[in-house]
Amino acid sequence: MSGKKAYNVAIVGATGAVGGKILTILQDRQFPIESLKLLSSKRSAGKKILFNNEEVTVEEATPDSFTGVDIAFFSAGGSISKKLAKKAVDAGAVVVDNTSAYRMDEGVPLVVPEVNEGDLKNHKGLISNPNCSTIQMVAALKPIQSAYGLNRVIVSTYQAVSGAGNAACNELEEQSKQYLNNEEMKAELLPVGGDKNHYPIAFNALPQIDVFGENGYTFEEMKMINETKKIMHAQELPVAATCVRLPFFTSHAESVYIEVNQDGLTVNDIWKVLDGAEGVILEDNPSTQTYPTPLSAANKDEVFVGRVRKDLDNKKGFHLWVVSDNLVKGAALNTVQIAESLIKNNWL
Amino acid sequence: MSGKKAYNVAIVGATGAVGGKILTILQDRQFPIESLKLLSSKRSAGKKILFNNEEVTVEEATPDSFTGVDIAFFSAGGSISKKLAKKAVDAGAVVVDNTSAYRMDEGVPLVVPEVNEGDLKNHKGLISNPNCSTIQMVAALKPIQSAYGLNRVIVSTYQAVSGAGNAACNELEEQSKQYLNNEEMKAELLPVGGDKNHYPIAFNALPQIDVFGENGYTFEEMKMINETKKIMHAQELPVAATCVRLPFFTSHAESVYIEVNQDGLTVNDIWKVLDGAEGVILEDNPSTQTYPTPLSAANKDEVFVGRVRKDLDNKKGFHLWVVSDNLVKGAALNTVQIAESLIKNNWL
Repeated sequence: MSGKKAYNVAIVGATGAVGGKILTILQDRQFPIESLKLLSSKRSAGKKILFNNEEVTVEEATPDSFTGVDIAFFSAGGSISKKLAKKAVDAGAVVVDNTSAYRMDEGVPLVVPEVNEGDLKNHKGLISNPNCSTIQMVAALKPIQSAYGLNRVIVSTYQAVSGAGNAACNELEEQSKQYLNNEEMKAELLPVGGDKNHYPIAFNALPQIDVFGENGYTFEEMKMINETKKIMHAQELPVAATCVRLPFFTSHAESVYIEVNQDGLTVNDIWKVLDGAEGVILEDNPSTQTYPTPLSAANKDEVFVGRVRKDLDNKKGFHLWVVSDNLVKGAALNTVQIAESLIKNNWL
Repeated sequence: MSGKKAYNVAIVGATGAVGGKILTILQDRQFPIESLKLLSSKRSAGKKILFNNEEVTVEEATPDSFTGVDIAFFSAGGSISKKLAKKAVDAGAVVVDNTSAYRMDEGVPLVVPEVNEGDLKNHKGLISNPNCSTIQMVAALKPIQSAYGLNRVIVSTYQAVSGAGNAACNELEEQSKQYLNNEEMKAELLPVGGDKNHYPIAFNALPQIDVFGENGYTFEEMKMINETKKIMHAQELPVAATCVRLPFFTSHAESVYIEVNQDGLTVNDIWKVLDGAEGVILEDNPSTQTYPTPLSAANKDEVFVGRVRKDLDNKKGFHLWVVSDNLVKGAALNTVQIAESLIKNNWL
């Protein structure tokens, strides 16, 4: 397929929060598209979406949708990927899957191009896009790992509701209005649509993202732990995560404690490797109150790092504050960047 | 003064967020009050406040306000405490100061009664109430420290705007309305009233509470670090903190990583010492999605702990989620409990 100038592209989940972002990003980055197929559930089929000023009608995604498709972006939830991603591969498409369905499968590359682009080389048609909270963390940690080694990661997250989709954004908006009007807040979705109980997110914090596993960690926490090791090629790296949903719409923030593998490093040494690192922007100056926030990072492509501090007790310890738009670099942009990398390297 | 049945009480900062809570708590707990003096800035003097169904007129706080006062609660900011607290002590009052003015001074007890009540015994008239984010953390850590020892603490906070006073609550409310109405948000106060720049808090997160010190940590972070060591009598305990302001009105939450001083402990061992600990309520059951949140802890007296997990790599490591009302146990209640302890132990 190499040498081809433009590609037949399909998007599964085109009407969702991430699908919409993928469309915008394909358009903004002038991705070389020969034809575009927008796929969704039966419910959303028939909708019309503008792409490059042309109306595209959304079709229902079926096992037969992928004939002639070169690249299929999947972001319609894990169960849809389980049902259709391998059909798409069988039909000859390369799938970039934005769900957790195949991320930890051996033989499925899990890729953040700035971190482990080389893992794409030997793909077998199916490539996974990592979890949003993982992507931004490994993008920030990679330059540090490369320069100084990494012995330990402990992260506490501050995650936006858009990670749970458009309906969660609506829920935050509605509950916020209810609260400000002294009305009772209606909680029907968060923390997890499919779980038993729902709690208000407006003016609150929910220490649960995705369902709980047997070990007391949530699936979101285990994703951060396991995906980080896979992407960074560091199975022995101790990673711990606590994931918390918060009442803002866009961008995840992360308070990250790391231990590097060298004594005597300074904040300057960390700044030096982050400043100018691919996809990373250093925003860190206490004297001017410069640090990234969810609002300042919204709709931007990069991963922003600030509040770099040396631990006061552990000579190898540092603290970072990492913020990125969870729908852009955390999802849609990274997905598109994977496809761009495949094309650039003739790995499609 | 021991043996006295009721006390002449003064509240400095009676019209503020914490002062108002102190009044409510004194009333609810039927604190033995002989006379009540409500003090404030000149600006608020003359206001009338109901206490036990009687109107009390707020007076301007001056160096001469404390004649005949037995117990003076200060919560009008550090500069007022610096100006007036020692005058009150000279006039014969015992001062419980809710500001950071004297907390780290040698000879000034810094007390959470459940943790280090004995430190009150040799007070010299001036007692400090710790920082809100510190109080709830040490209340949760003390039973663990006592049972198993404590080698390390790393905390990331999720703090309510009410910690910055009533004006900050108004700012969150106004900005939320502006955002929901598609108007520009006006930021005039947070993250820190006296600092140069102001950023919106509504639908955002600000990784700055209080001003920055030379070492890149904020004063809030250094308060958590230094106060924890003083209260827990653990000068050698490595404590690290990252403090973040979030868009909710009430309760601070904390993601706390600890290393205990014993191998082989289980989550059950941690649950055992937290369950029934004084002032602590364990709310931790993943199978029923039971965990504390800022909204669930609001207006309650206790410190709530959930999400207890064993670290997956460090045999001595555990993760906790600690939530408490920052104006109640984090400020007003602890202040009143200090006074109650002085009375109970004849240490006034």
